[in-house]
Amino acid sequence: MILDGRHIASVIREELSQEIGRIVADGGRAPSLAVVIVGHNPASETYVRNKIRACEEVGIQAQKIAFDEDVTEDVLLQQIDILNQDPSIDGFLVQLPLPEHISEQKIAERIDYRKDVDGLCPENVGRTMLGMPSIMSATPKGIRELLKRYDIPTEGKRVVVIGRSNIVGKPMAMLLIQKNLLGNATVTLCHTKTPNLKEVCLEADIIIVAVGQPCTLTEDMVRTGCVVVDVGINRVNDQSDKGYRLCGDADFEKLKDKCSYISPVPGGVGPMTIASLLQNTLQAYKFRITKD
Amino acid sequence: MILDGRHIASVIREELSQEIGRIVADGGRAPSLAVVIVGHNPASETYVRNKIRACEEVGIQAQKIAFDEDVTEDVLLQQIDILNQDPSIDGFLVQLPLPEHISEQKIAERIDYRKDVDGLCPENVGRTMLGMPSIMSATPKGIRELLKRYDIPTEGKRVVVIGRSNIVGKPMAMLLIQKNLLGNATVTLCHTKTPNLKEVCLEADIIIVAVGQPCTLTEDMVRTGCVVVDVGINRVNDQSDKGYRLCGDADFEKLKDKCSYISPVPGGVGPMTIASLLQNTLQAYKFRITKD
Repeated sequence: MILDGRHIASVIREELSQEIGRIVADGGRAPSLAVVIVGHNPASETYVRNKIRACEEVGIQAQKIAFDEDVTEDVLLQQIDILNQDPSIDGFLVQLPLPEHISEQKIAERIDYRKDVDGLCPENVGRTMLGMPSIMSATPKGIRELLKRYDIPTEGKRVVVIGRSNIVGKPMAMLLIQKNLLGNATVTLCHTKTPNLKEVCLEADIIIVAVGQPCTLTEDMVRTGCVVVDVGINRVNDQSDKGYRLCGDADFEKLKDKCSYISPVPGGVGPMTIASLLQNTLQAYKFRITKD
Repeated sequence: MILDGRHIASVIREELSQEIGRIVADGGRAPSLAVVIVGHNPASETYVRNKIRACEEVGIQAQKIAFDEDVTEDVLLQQIDILNQDPSIDGFLVQLPLPEHISEQKIAERIDYRKDVDGLCPENVGRTMLGMPSIMSATPKGIRELLKRYDIPTEGKRVVVIGRSNIVGKPMAMLLIQKNLLGNATVTLCHTKTPNLKEVCLEADIIIVAVGQPCTLTEDMVRTGCVVVDVGINRVNDQSDKGYRLCGDADFEKLKDKCSYISPVPGGVGPMTIASLLQNTLQAYKFRITKD
């Protein structure tokens, strides 16, 4: 069965739209998001456009703040300070990757965690890991939500996470071992230094693959009935007009009949990440409203 | 073979002692630590006494700040603010557990991460997980050091961590999956909701058990040649004058000949945790000196 992230994300957007509609109808102001983008990477520009469109669709006021490729780190840090302090901004994010002369680490450290709607700054990552109130990393949060909406339990299950990135693998593992009904899994985190990946995957009830490499997860690595969540978005050259097609990290065609559930690429995790971003923005808004 | 934490910790203390001796001989001031304790829990008082003695032994100036059991949360938070700002204090810790009317979470959140020598506040936990410069949780750091000093590689090994506490299990898993030579392990995190703990343990090259329950890890759960690190410190009643003896979470007597290495309780991880605390204090001191 297909884990239809596009459909679930649209259900979440509808829920958010209704909630924000009620807030505004009751005389409240709309939540607001700012998206900072540096340079003209085409993929980044597409992502930012999609995020802003998704915001507008649910009633979140969104604005883009664009800098040229050669902006200095100092100017970008000053922009973050402004956004941290601006009372009309509930949340913001800086689209990655950044040009090489700007430290992504310094940027992440500077963002006020209460406005960090990507959930990537150290304070939020630490709070999530410690089980404290936090804004969660958007992609792992979206995957957890996808499993929840399909009634796929994680408690007592063996979950294998492939890939140890800061934005997916590590925070995904940390969400799934939390002491709650959406966690309680026995989690194994694998990566490039795992010598026997196939053997480890064959132990899994659920596999989450996030390495950015086509055909990392093949048919022989997966037990019949396993759940596969595919986080990779890879461009593969083909004969189409565009000259490429998108595919995930799993061999979808061969796996789709062997798995009980599998998420497609595109249309699986991607839309869920944007849905999480919208949820996180509303969460940041509510937090600030409570404090007002 | 026994992982002799008491011996390794004494080697580390000697190294620290020499380094601090050189700093002072060169006209520098000594590093300083404050330990805050609330109430009169006998175990806590012993821990605090041991920490202060260990500091003095290596040349760290240590002071105890004691409050009665009925101190308010506000007063304790004010004390933390004072320590955060006091330029003569390089690091401090608040001994746990705290009385029920005080939120350990609020306390942890308030500590400036640059002085958080226990490495338990969200900012340090997040920074460690993201691979950024941080003060690491003392117990996992001590365990990593113990493995390193015995030349036990973790790269490419399967490590099973039993117990998902904020002070041991979760940060231990995060250290071991980092992309470096002291990490690079394939890590599985188990807990009370793991249904098949024995089966999982039998896959492991290294097992780290931290649940606080005697005989959690028994002979049948461990492959011949496995490395076992025992973090538990449990009191078991016996016929001795004290009326109890200390033991770990592993069945040490039955395991010691089956394992390639095993850490005893007492004398294994406990002394390493204190050694980490001393290292963390010197690290916090150097950080502040650099900034002066």
